[in-house]
Amino acid sequence: MDTADLAKRILAGERRALARAITLVESSRSDHRTQALELLDALRSHDREALRIGLSGTPGVGKSTFIESFGCMLTAQGLKVAVLAVDPSSARSGGSILGDKTRMERLSRDRNAFIRPSPSQSHLGGVARRTREAIDLCEAAGFDVILIETVGVGQSETVVAEMSDLFLLLLAPAGGDELQGVKRGIMEMADLIIVNKADGDLKATATRTCADYAGALRLLRKRPQDPEGFPKALTVSAIQENGLDQAWAEMTALADWRRDSGNWAGRRAAQARYWFEAEVREGLLARLRREPVRGAMSALAVQVENGEVAPTAAAEQLLSMYLQTTVAEAS
Amino acid sequence: MDTADLAKRILAGERRALARAITLVESSRSDHRTQALELLDALRSHDREALRIGLSGTPGVGKSTFIESFGCMLTAQGLKVAVLAVDPSSARSGGSILGDKTRMERLSRDRNAFIRPSPSQSHLGGVARRTREAIDLCEAAGFDVILIETVGVGQSETVVAEMSDLFLLLLAPAGGDELQGVKRGIMEMADLIIVNKADGDLKATATRTCADYAGALRLLRKRPQDPEGFPKALTVSAIQENGLDQAWAEMTALADWRRDSGNWAGRRAAQARYWFEAEVREGLLARLRREPVRGAMSALAVQVENGEVAPTAAAEQLLSMYLQTTVAEAS
Repeated sequence: MDTADLAKRILAGERRALARAITLVESSRSDHRTQALELLDALRSHDREALRIGLSGTPGVGKSTFIESFGCMLTAQGLKVAVLAVDPSSARSGGSILGDKTRMERLSRDRNAFIRPSPSQSHLGGVARRTREAIDLCEAAGFDVILIETVGVGQSETVVAEMSDLFLLLLAPAGGDELQGVKRGIMEMADLIIVNKADGDLKATATRTCADYAGALRLLRKRPQDPEGFPKALTVSAIQENGLDQAWAEMTALADWRRDSGNWAGRRAAQARYWFEAEVREGLLARLRREPVRGAMSALAVQVENGEVAPTAAAEQLLSMYLQTTVAEAS
Repeated sequence: MDTADLAKRILAGERRALARAITLVESSRSDHRTQALELLDALRSHDREALRIGLSGTPGVGKSTFIESFGCMLTAQGLKVAVLAVDPSSARSGGSILGDKTRMERLSRDRNAFIRPSPSQSHLGGVARRTREAIDLCEAAGFDVILIETVGVGQSETVVAEMSDLFLLLLAPAGGDELQGVKRGIMEMADLIIVNKADGDLKATATRTCADYAGALRLLRKRPQDPEGFPKALTVSAIQENGLDQAWAEMTALADWRRDSGNWAGRRAAQARYWFEAEVREGLLARLRREPVRGAMSALAVQVENGEVAPTAAAEQLLSMYLQTTVAEAS
């Protein structure tokens, strides 16, 4: 594959080149990995900068409808919008969120939008790397806004927040008791809490839920990355397309403030460092899942279970084997 | 150091030899590590088996008083009791739980008891390894019961449960609302919930708290490692030494059932495997904290923050450097 040519076509905004490049970064074949790194390196010099928006919400809050309505509003303003996903459940189910593009019918047919389902991977580390690289590719292809969605379970919010400039938490209207359902750690990551379904019978409940969250947000310690009044809670109706413009105004206001205050660049630098360190750790652990180390580890585990060798001694054996074979492979 | 001689003296039950051996396994110096592994290997052939009891409780539940009263009851029965600690907070504070032996004055002067504070370590992985090895040493030295205590924060309960035959959760009397304070994951690990301070003004509250937890435990799915009626909740007064004999009867009944059902051996085998895998991962990551890898990682992190090199490319560079230097060191 001619990665220099592919890079050129991505910079020219060719959708098919972008799709092909994302398929390349999603592959775990080692020759593909080499090409992917070449490609990303060839794309490093552009000075395009998208607004990366992380979006988390549990199933049922209307995430797809929100992305559809919000995305279409942005493309109608002439903005190019990419939608990516980090799906922690795909490991188990084999399925993926966003797999069903029919839930975003209008947006998926929009020439200014690009929707990519989550890659199916066996672990979150792999999904994270591929999504980060897909973000870089979309940015190089000239997208103005990149939405990175995830379902609100486990560690995936942290993963998404660490690759976003803004992090949104999408919620459904709920009784006061359920407010506790949102973990404090997730609340603390949110820049904007958006209560969806503020329409019809649920409108009053949505307003009350929003007020509850606004109150809870005021109790959090002020963060250096926020101007006065943030993090903020507001209501929208994705299905009636109400409140989306105001949500967008809040996002751009916050993004502008962070750019001006130097926080934006600082955040991206800190994220780059975070991913570097995560890649190093993940790179070390990934080699445990490859032969011949994997087989040796299983065999030693059986001996450990049978009491034939102590855990620490067995670990020493495996580590030495790991280093020898990995270096032998590399040379 | 003559590790064969040290092993012999530990098997003979010499307390000073045991204390010295624990100091040896707590050291991270590489020559000490080698000797520690030699020693543990020399001790592998004995057929002594202690009852390892994990004990978790937040500050204020009366953990020290419980250990003091419970331990003295056991030594009065002629049993030899060792007390170890896994302290997740020592990393930050530099202090350690159990450091103040005056809180267990009677037990610390008891010839059939051995109390060892938590080693101060920079991370939980290190504390876990040293505590596991100290357990092996105490078992070899002929202790009948080994209590491993931890404070109820973070991951330390899992660490302790994975090195125990039984896991106890110690609680204080509390209003019904506070029942939620115990995380479901911790409840699911407990074999016995012990509500302390069932004396004086708090007696009625303790009884009610115990009933609340008994109810909560009945809602959990039945576990294969439990006979009918377990996990169980009961009340004690450590300070008045009430209920301790009944708690001990429950522990031995459960331990006997597990021994007979084969669950005991299966649990120890699974734990050995767990620690083998944890040691492998920890062993790989520990080398990142050592020079020259540590310095190279810091330098690369700065370049990544400045955008001079991409996170993934920098990680590849570091991994290759890591492997080369680690193998060079080993040969």
